[in-house]
Amino acid sequence: MTAIAERPHVVIAGAGFAGLYAARSLRTAPVRVTIVDRQNHHLFQPLLYQVATAGLSAPDIASPIRGILRQQANTTVLLAEIEHVNPNHRCLVLDSGELAYDFLILATGSTPNYFGHDEWAQHAPGLKNIQDAFEIRRQVLLAFEAAEREPDTEKQRAYLTFGIVGAGPTGAELAGILREIAQHTLARDFRNFDPRSTRVVLIDAAERVLPTFPEPLSQKARVMLETLGVEIQTSSQVVDIDESGLTLTSTAPLATAPERISARTVLWAAGVKASPLAESLNTPQDEWGRVYVESDLSVPGYPELFVVGDLAHVDRDDQPVPAMAPPAIQEGRHAANVIQAVLRGHPRTSFHYKDRGMLAAIGRRAGVASIYGRSFSGLIAWFLWLVVHIASLIGFRNRLVVLFEWSWAYFTYQRSAAESPEIAYEHNE
Amino acid sequence: MTAIAERPHVVIAGAGFAGLYAARSLRTAPVRVTIVDRQNHHLFQPLLYQVATAGLSAPDIASPIRGILRQQANTTVLLAEIEHVNPNHRCLVLDSGELAYDFLILATGSTPNYFGHDEWAQHAPGLKNIQDAFEIRRQVLLAFEAAEREPDTEKQRAYLTFGIVGAGPTGAELAGILREIAQHTLARDFRNFDPRSTRVVLIDAAERVLPTFPEPLSQKARVMLETLGVEIQTSSQVVDIDESGLTLTSTAPLATAPERISARTVLWAAGVKASPLAESLNTPQDEWGRVYVESDLSVPGYPELFVVGDLAHVDRDDQPVPAMAPPAIQEGRHAANVIQAVLRGHPRTSFHYKDRGMLAAIGRRAGVASIYGRSFSGLIAWFLWLVVHIASLIGFRNRLVVLFEWSWAYFTYQRSAAESPEIAYEHNE
Repeated sequence: MTAIAERPHVVIAGAGFAGLYAARSLRTAPVRVTIVDRQNHHLFQPLLYQVATAGLSAPDIASPIRGILRQQANTTVLLAEIEHVNPNHRCLVLDSGELAYDFLILATGSTPNYFGHDEWAQHAPGLKNIQDAFEIRRQVLLAFEAAEREPDTEKQRAYLTFGIVGAGPTGAELAGILREIAQHTLARDFRNFDPRSTRVVLIDAAERVLPTFPEPLSQKARVMLETLGVEIQTSSQVVDIDESGLTLTSTAPLATAPERISARTVLWAAGVKASPLAESLNTPQDEWGRVYVESDLSVPGYPELFVVGDLAHVDRDDQPVPAMAPPAIQEGRHAANVIQAVLRGHPRTSFHYKDRGMLAAIGRRAGVASIYGRSFSGLIAWFLWLVVHIASLIGFRNRLVVLFEWSWAYFTYQRSAAESPEIAYEHNE
Repeated sequence: MTAIAERPHVVIAGAGFAGLYAARSLRTAPVRVTIVDRQNHHLFQPLLYQVATAGLSAPDIASPIRGILRQQANTTVLLAEIEHVNPNHRCLVLDSGELAYDFLILATGSTPNYFGHDEWAQHAPGLKNIQDAFEIRRQVLLAFEAAEREPDTEKQRAYLTFGIVGAGPTGAELAGILREIAQHTLARDFRNFDPRSTRVVLIDAAERVLPTFPEPLSQKARVMLETLGVEIQTSSQVVDIDESGLTLTSTAPLATAPERISARTVLWAAGVKASPLAESLNTPQDEWGRVYVESDLSVPGYPELFVVGDLAHVDRDDQPVPAMAPPAIQEGRHAANVIQAVLRGHPRTSFHYKDRGMLAAIGRRAGVASIYGRSFSGLIAWFLWLVVHIASLIGFRNRLVVLFEWSWAYFTYQRSAAESPEIAYEHNE
């Protein structure tokens, strides 16, 4: 075996699902891996909305990258901002200097897509990182506090109205949780209004909620959301957002007058666009900035450069695969496997997305799921959602063991092996 | 019973230990209570350093004030910034208007005391709220990241040196935890340095660590800290702090040349001064801004205005009682009891601090404790520390039950009564 320093250098840009799974797939490969991210943690994004709604703490879903990859001796973690890619010189330009590579896996993900209206971002925050989640949590809690102080009934109403743009899984889950919070969590916390009167309006330009799900499941999800008290405005296009609310027009054939909704809190869950880093590749991108890749996920003309995850435009049945964790994981692994094949002199293989299905939780006891073409709804779908998400958590099961032990220690006054969730998690990882 | 709106109005400024325990003592009193704070949560400050060192999550020690006081029908919670007190007009001036009172309990606490060198604050953050804890956590983690990137050995050394000013319980506990993190948590996380070589320098102008503890316990704590690898610089006065480190002079009789310590991270745990709100009372204050109060804790000349907690100068054996949770709790309760006595036409009583002792944890398995005059050290003191802190947590035991249930649900895939720590905590409170 060659010394690590002499091995081919694989640089992975981004430690989201695609980048992290690529790194793990290379753990026994005869390469030197450097994984670069501007955050020190990998984020389990599918549960980020639960941090935004105070259901989980940040450490429950954010795990230090160094900790995850600690045992992987061929891998270095670098905390740095990537300024651009220079594919012709095979290097990444970082804020702290240049980083040369033999292979690059570009997996820097996506940002919220305001479809040309970036000025809406200040009034309708999206949800991509922990800071966003804290900001949304703060805004939601402060809206209730402002309502408590507001003597004017109409203004109070605007504080107690939450608009959610985008009725995909994130939007639908957020809407359900917000109604649960209003109905149960905060029900007796205020003296000047009844939190149960909180309006949650879920908006989508498509004709139905969860538009990527099979239609019967969309219908079921709609009923579940309405049972929770969510107001649904499908076939509705957002044409304006400002600090006092949003304006909708109908996308239905029979046009009606624009509708104004007074809402002091608007959350954006209407889709993503590729991270701007893709532009520095000077290669064709689709309308949302995703890079068109070869069937092996490499960039045309640059066989050593792979683009994976939300940043890649990968077709399946003439539709791009969605910006979700499962395709990102599969793509990251595929790029790592192609690199290993190349190093062994084997042929490059084509990527095929294995679609196992999709899931959404609605509130705290219901959900819809489409697994290998079979549909489930209600408690069983919620249960599937739970199992799938738990099974996907990286290293967090250890943390939960420790939470268990730590809680138990508090109660019985017995010392367990671990005094602190964070530290003991680190030991056991 | 009179209608709540007609009852005397007790305003409590600040929902720390003093304010919160005052509010709880008034739960059955024939008064109307308004508690004002600029944060929405009560903070269990004695464990804040564990959030700063990533040992606990913020929600473990921060509990929504509304949740704690939800069942208390005579009490309203107001989120507002207090600008000043107008004792002659019996009102608080808030950012959102004026709030008139019949009785006021002023409990707005303290801020870090830089003893006339406020310019040091930017280089040596103190630890008073959740934001401070996040900032310190971020600084500490980023120092290790910077060391990983730094090729110059001497500069790397400065990143790996942590100065802690103040060797009271907070400083000693911080120092111990930082060495534990360097030795165990991060031991295998970096490729370009050995985290076990991290220097932690604990500085105090007094002759010994934990200067308020009995001397034999200070000696034991010193040995424990040195066993963990903490460097102790007692009898050392900080004369300068800047971004690259700090300068010390000896306070010992035989003066030596000033010593320079290169340290990119300096943390401040050297004492507190009263919140600036005290100034608006125009009544005598001591050198750290604390208000001299009457024996019943009221302000001279204003029998309806009480000052409690870190903001009050209360003497015991010619020494002011220390700025800690137990005296704050006792003072808050006392002020509430005096108000109830006045309303019943009973005489006002004098406050006497019941000193049960003091505790400090050193690292994760040792500590020192002085309880009712008896001294303990080692594991038994650490155990006492654990019991006392757990017993003092307000409402958090409920949360821990839920953490237990939540963890258990994850593992067994059984649903428990509670899916989310935050939400279920709210239900059970």
